[in-house]
Amino acid sequence: MPDPVRSTVSPSQQSELADRFAKVRALSLDLAAPLSDADATVQSMADASPTKWHLAHTTWFFETFVLRDHVAGYALHDDRFPFLFNSYYEAEGRRHARDRRGMVTRPSLDEVRAYRAHVDAAVLAALPDLSADAHALVALGCHHEEQHQELLVTDILHMFSENPLEPAMWPAARKVPVEMPGAIGWIANDGGIVEVGHRGDGFAFDCEGPRHQALLAPHAIADRTVTNGEWAAFIADGGYTEARYWLADGWAWVKAEGIVAPLYWEEGESGWTRFGLDGRRAIDPAAPVTHVSFFEADAYAAWAGARLPTEFEWEAAAASHDAGGGNQMDVAGPVEPRPSTGGPGFFGDVWEWTGSAYRPYPGFVAAAGAVGEYNGKFMTSQFILRGGSCATPRGHARASYRNFFYPHQRWQFTGVRLAKDI
Amino acid sequence: MPDPVRSTVSPSQQSELADRFAKVRALSLDLAAPLSDADATVQSMADASPTKWHLAHTTWFFETFVLRDHVAGYALHDDRFPFLFNSYYEAEGRRHARDRRGMVTRPSLDEVRAYRAHVDAAVLAALPDLSADAHALVALGCHHEEQHQELLVTDILHMFSENPLEPAMWPAARKVPVEMPGAIGWIANDGGIVEVGHRGDGFAFDCEGPRHQALLAPHAIADRTVTNGEWAAFIADGGYTEARYWLADGWAWVKAEGIVAPLYWEEGESGWTRFGLDGRRAIDPAAPVTHVSFFEADAYAAWAGARLPTEFEWEAAAASHDAGGGNQMDVAGPVEPRPSTGGPGFFGDVWEWTGSAYRPYPGFVAAAGAVGEYNGKFMTSQFILRGGSCATPRGHARASYRNFFYPHQRWQFTGVRLAKDI
Amino acid sequence: MPDPVRSTVSPSQQSELADRFAKVRALSLDLAAPLSDADATVQSMADASPTKWHLAHTTWFFETFVLRDHVAGYALHDDRFPFLFNSYYEAEGRRHARDRRGMVTRPSLDEVRAYRAHVDAAVLAALPDLSADAHALVALGCHHEEQHQELLVTDILHMFSENPLEPAMWPAARKVPVEMPGAIGWIANDGGIVEVGHRGDGFAFDCEGPRHQALLAPHAIADRTVTNGEWAAFIADGGYTEARYWLADGWAWVKAEGIVAPLYWEEGESGWTRFGLDGRRAIDPAAPVTHVSFFEADAYAAWAGARLPTEFEWEAAAASHDAGGGNQMDVAGPVEPRPSTGGPGFFGDVWEWTGSAYRPYPGFVAAAGAVGEYNGKFMTSQFILRGGSCATPRGHARASYRNFFYPHQRWQFTGVRLAKDI
Amino acid sequence: MPDPVRSTVSPSQQSELADRFAKVRALSLDLAAPLSDADATVQSMADASPTKWHLAHTTWFFETFVLRDHVAGYALHDDRFPFLFNSYYEAEGRRHARDRRGMVTRPSLDEVRAYRAHVDAAVLAALPDLSADAHALVALGCHHEEQHQELLVTDILHMFSENPLEPAMWPAARKVPVEMPGAIGWIANDGGIVEVGHRGDGFAFDCEGPRHQALLAPHAIADRTVTNGEWAAFIADGGYTEARYWLADGWAWVKAEGIVAPLYWEEGESGWTRFGLDGRRAIDPAAPVTHVSFFEADAYAAWAGARLPTEFEWEAAAASHDAGGGNQMDVAGPVEPRPSTGGPGFFGDVWEWTGSAYRPYPGFVAAAGAVGEYNGKFMTSQFILRGGSCATPRGHARASYRNFFYPHQRWQFTGVRLAKDI
Repeated sequence: MPDPVRSTVSPSQQSELADRFAKVRALSLDLAAPLSDADATVQSMADASPTKWHLAHTTWFFETFVLRDHVAGYALHDDRFPFLFNSYYEAEGRRHARDRRGMVTRPSLDEVRAYRAHVDAAVLAALPDLSADAHALVALGCHHEEQHQELLVTDILHMFSENPLEPAMWPAARKVPVEMPGAIGWIANDGGIVEVGHRGDGFAFDCEGPRHQALLAPHAIADRTVTNGEWAAFIADGGYTEARYWLADGWAWVKAEGIVAPLYWEEGESGWTRFGLDGRRAIDPAAPVTHVSFFEADAYAAWAGARLPTEFEWEAAAASHDAGGGNQMDVAGPVEPRPSTGGPGFFGDVWEWTGSAYRPYPGFVAAAGAVGEYNGKFMTSQFILRGGSCATPRGHARASYRNFFYPHQRWQFTGVRLAKDI
Repeated sequence: MPDPVRSTVSPSQQSELADRFAKVRALSLDLAAPLSDADATVQSMADASPTKWHLAHTTWFFETFVLRDHVAGYALHDDRFPFLFNSYYEAEGRRHARDRRGMVTRPSLDEVRAYRAHVDAAVLAALPDLSADAHALVALGCHHEEQHQELLVTDILHMFSENPLEPAMWPAARKVPVEMPGAIGWIANDGGIVEVGHRGDGFAFDCEGPRHQALLAPHAIADRTVTNGEWAAFIADGGYTEARYWLADGWAWVKAEGIVAPLYWEEGESGWTRFGLDGRRAIDPAAPVTHVSFFEADAYAAWAGARLPTEFEWEAAAASHDAGGGNQMDVAGPVEPRPSTGGPGFFGDVWEWTGSAYRPYPGFVAAAGAVGEYNGKFMTSQFILRGGSCATPRGHARASYRNFFYPHQRWQFTGVRLAKDI
Repeated sequence: MPDPVRSTVSPSQQSELADRFAKVRALSLDLAAPLSDADATVQSMADASPTKWHLAHTTWFFETFVLRDHVAGYALHDDRFPFLFNSYYEAEGRRHARDRRGMVTRPSLDEVRAYRAHVDAAVLAALPDLSADAHALVALGCHHEEQHQELLVTDILHMFSENPLEPAMWPAARKVPVEMPGAIGWIANDGGIVEVGHRGDGFAFDCEGPRHQALLAPHAIADRTVTNGEWAAFIADGGYTEARYWLADGWAWVKAEGIVAPLYWEEGESGWTRFGLDGRRAIDPAAPVTHVSFFEADAYAAWAGARLPTEFEWEAAAASHDAGGGNQMDVAGPVEPRPSTGGPGFFGDVWEWTGSAYRPYPGFVAAAGAVGEYNGKFMTSQFILRGGSCATPRGHARASYRNFFYPHQRWQFTGVRLAKDI
Repeated sequence: MPDPVRSTVSPSQQSELADRFAKVRALSLDLAAPLSDADATVQSMADASPTKWHLAHTTWFFETFVLRDHVAGYALHDDRFPFLFNSYYEAEGRRHARDRRGMVTRPSLDEVRAYRAHVDAAVLAALPDLSADAHALVALGCHHEEQHQELLVTDILHMFSENPLEPAMWPAARKVPVEMPGAIGWIANDGGIVEVGHRGDGFAFDCEGPRHQALLAPHAIADRTVTNGEWAAFIADGGYTEARYWLADGWAWVKAEGIVAPLYWEEGESGWTRFGLDGRRAIDPAAPVTHVSFFEADAYAAWAGARLPTEFEWEAAAASHDAGGGNQMDVAGPVEPRPSTGGPGFFGDVWEWTGSAYRPYPGFVAAAGAVGEYNGKFMTSQFILRGGSCATPRGHARASYRNFFYPHQRWQFTGVRLAKDI
């Protein structure tokens, strides 16, 4: 998941910053509202973090890079917190081991909420006098926190999935019956040079630039993502038992981990179920499949006689669509991918695996200092995902946005859109 | 740690059982009183369990073996709990993986307290009509719970030690200055046949019998345990860096784990400190060393020109001492080994590693059914400890009591008493 | 390392095939000539294979895909060999576990030589009557064997490095004194569309095509590779101790494995030495550094204020150079990177890490059947290397050749060429 | 496996020492005679060593402790060999990692034979002038080498078992038809004090003393070991699938390793086969079962309603039997357990697991210096085996002999004799 580095704050954004800050900070608390102190403390795997840690780490970010660095006389809320709540910034010194974050029963959730309140008040009080650079860091912090809001939701889902009781975080939303989607439609592209990367207006993370030209080969890209129903057919057709569909590393992963279906799926007497934020329920065959790894996505594409799109094919197709539309997270509640209705959409529901490795764009240079550690240092062995999911806070997605995970990871809301050569 | 199997309930004990049950059950809650829901939920390593699990598992024991099996019409408080709170009884069916106990944020600590209240009321209501067998199971459950009280304390200590903030569970007790203990005195024994094992009056775990004869060689046993000050001298003399003091497996453990001192010790500018239930403080050179493994105990003895006592040498020496004396746990609070005063004592402060492997006595037969799984199946590769510690509930210790752990384990209050051949 | 799939055999190549076959087959035996049966049997790590296995596997390739499939009535030399000597072709059935190849003390090296002689005779006898398809498979088998010749050399080097006696495989070649290379010169490129991939004349592996257009950004590429002397300066300047130069995965690898220098380097009283096919000797500061991983290459580039070239930048620069020139393997003997003399060269000495992940070209489709498993299934999490090394048989390299390894691997002759944005 | 420490060489033994030395040294070479250089080099697991290492290590023992320490002016055959061929003597300095012994392709088997010839000549030349102490060390070295002869045989068997071709080391011996053994007979013992441990006449390892009194409980011990046929019945009755027969650690081992039968057994269409030094053949139902772990032995005993004998019960029963009788190794060849004929025997065929942990006898003190590392430092977490096997050189066994292995190990010729309380 990218962390933010460079930002350009336009004048019109400056007046909105206080409102935006307040709104972003409130959503994090709303997301944590159904959780007990214990729920917010436990870490279910090294890849995931406790809710309390997300709440505190995003606060540490503002306290460190805004208040400590730009507000004269600011005293740390608790000088033991930087050690606990720094994530991976080597330049910011020693920090608690990532896989032991779940040992921190104290401070409590309430104490972390008090930490948030203290820092929120200090940031809002300081805002009128902050330099443009510091304003940019506040904006950066908001985007950073939105990233952690999505992680908070997916990490909590994983933690509850490890409890044999499989508790629901929220009651289920009412399901609206929809028709099954028809066959995939293909959007053809004759190839040629396109412009990709962030345009320079509005916020973007450093890894989205510089904007540059890319050369596309002739291809077609699907007008929707793969559904649960289609995935069930893949399973039924031996998708997880035939080596020929799989990358060699993927096949080794399937064998070693005993993978037979997407994460959180279980087969019962009445068919496949999935665990979600509203507990365990039957899969919806019309909804986009999610919680699949790059390895699974690639194998599905091979089975389907297609391939994954490159990140630039995806970006070219998505550029004319509204990044603020689709099924994204507006409020705290049981987000999940929903059956698509209407025409093609490229944003929301599921992050879409591309066939592109996460590598720097031509001319990319990491920012100086600790914030320069956000993105560049992760550019190896990970794959790009595009589009945003049902757990992405609305407003966070962009056509140029580059999300990234290792090819075996699948606890995010990750899905599949097909492409093919023409 | 032994789990109980066989018991003989004398008439006089029957009238005391309700009182004892209430007292034991209350102490567990007292021990958990300073803990938050999160504190009580987190599991810091596979060897340890969450407080909430201890509180629920001991309750499950009464619910299963007393209420379910001996009280007609009893309905389980929650039929999902047996899966969660069975420990290792294969005969009782599937159960939650031991190393994932820390994932159970729900039920909450309050819900577990409600589970306890429900079962407590049911047991007390049923008690007057229970058969002798069921009475014996209630008594067994009390002893079982006392074992878990000690584990609860040592597991919580370990969990807090993993928090970089090193929180104290209780405020420190007032320290009473004492003189440094003098040189070890040696209690000589000319050897010969002695009777060992439980006598048959009062409660004992199955592994403590049958009582039988054992042949002792001439030997002497120390009149006190090794102190922190003596241990610091062992460290300063290269105790952890000279292979010749160590068993081969112990030396491999020291190298692989980077062991340089007892668990929870850290070297600072003012010397060694230790982490305890009252936080981090300087070691007390006059107090018994604790949190050392069998490997360390054996190496210390080699360095000191002595050896560990056998379990029967220990039992023979301890038989004439009051098992209810010494520094054992009377109430919830910051228990820790204390400097010894007065004459030789064999009970309390620290469990004492012996050189005896945990194996069955002549004629030992495990009980039938699930309770038969308590002790016999652990009789391999573990070593016997004797005497009881500062965290052993007073009344739980006996001269015949056989505690056992693997030779590398040291998160219990484990210490060292020397012996030698004469 | 790529395995071959598709080939187009021109008429002129057909007449040379018997000669080429004989020459390739002879070089493998020459490489193994200094080895004892034991040398040829032992496997030093899962990534490497025994010499005997290389000799037998390349033979199995001809026996299976040429003789079994295209020569009526051919009987297998030994029907137990396919299980032993298939490498990773799932379609060819079960096979011996890769990491247990070193257990096969029997058949002996002499028996494997007999297997080779049997198959060689059968292939040469069959050649006049073989179809064009089968001819193509013979040609493919020769390229395949050349790949294994390089692996044979690097695997043996690794195996000898694990012997505390550090035996030399061959006596050292005479060193010719040379001047130290001057500062790196930069070859500028204004960017734009270039053609990359195999042209279609002559042999190539499937992953080298289809030939297609690629868009380059303006950049400059170094006119030589990084030297041992420059690498020693990187080490002396804290290259392996400063996290900021490293990708996060690379830094974790450095810490976990205790990496402080290239593979086979040791620091002695007189400075750095390296282990090579001629034993342990002082490093030559003027020679190209080798046995560095992608992680190290990337960190070096960050330290040097540069970056690695993309595979297409490299291919564009190398296209006008003679792929048959430079320091490549002509005969069996102590190959090693040598100080460069003369103008820029892009072939030989060391494989050069690029910053490009190994992924398919637009329009790539794997061949049908078992040979289709050669390349496509490895296209994840590996990085492209270009150019060929001192252990690459001369004639095997091409500008379009795509070698690939995981970012932590470094037992091949792998080195670094810098690039930068302009 | 014990290594020797203390010895008392009687005058009569002194005159036989040269003959004995020559005979012992010859047998090792005879055992290695069928092996190629590669066979003798490969190491199949960390617990096992290559044949070449056994041949060299036993030679190093004489060279170090006899020639280097007691023969003025002796120059080491090769001063790089001590690093390679020291086993675990910390006092003798650094040594090659145990699990990398299989990397040493050079020196070759012939060079190791030359090393042996050199040392043999030097020892024989020095013998007339050696002190009594040095004589004792030569005798010790012979016993030490006999131990390694048994390991050589079992290690080679394991190595060949890892080769999919399953080569036979020797042709099969002719099988003599025998009747199935009848039901086990029980030898009763009323208990009481017995003398155990080495008497002091003749050679013994240090851990066999001091001789001392032990107290036995009333018991009975079987007059023969468990057979393959009986073991097959245990398997058929669910022996490996019922947790209740197993120690907890044993059950975890069965589950983790997928254990379903003794090592080297495979189930085919015609029933169980086993791999042995003569290749794969049907099991002989009348022969003693072998290659079972302590965990399996203990589970079998639980299933059979019996238990394992203590080491002193075994020693008391065996004391009146001829330690030189039974099926032990006389010459190099395909040793294996054979159906018993005649009355009860306690020596040969299989080492018999006892229920006794390997711990020191009262008064045990390790010898000073490097040889003191032989036995004492292994006295933890291992179990005693008694009696000797078909691969024990005849003359090596004694009633007081204490062999020891970890409870999961089973590549030695290990079997089961039952006992029970009466």
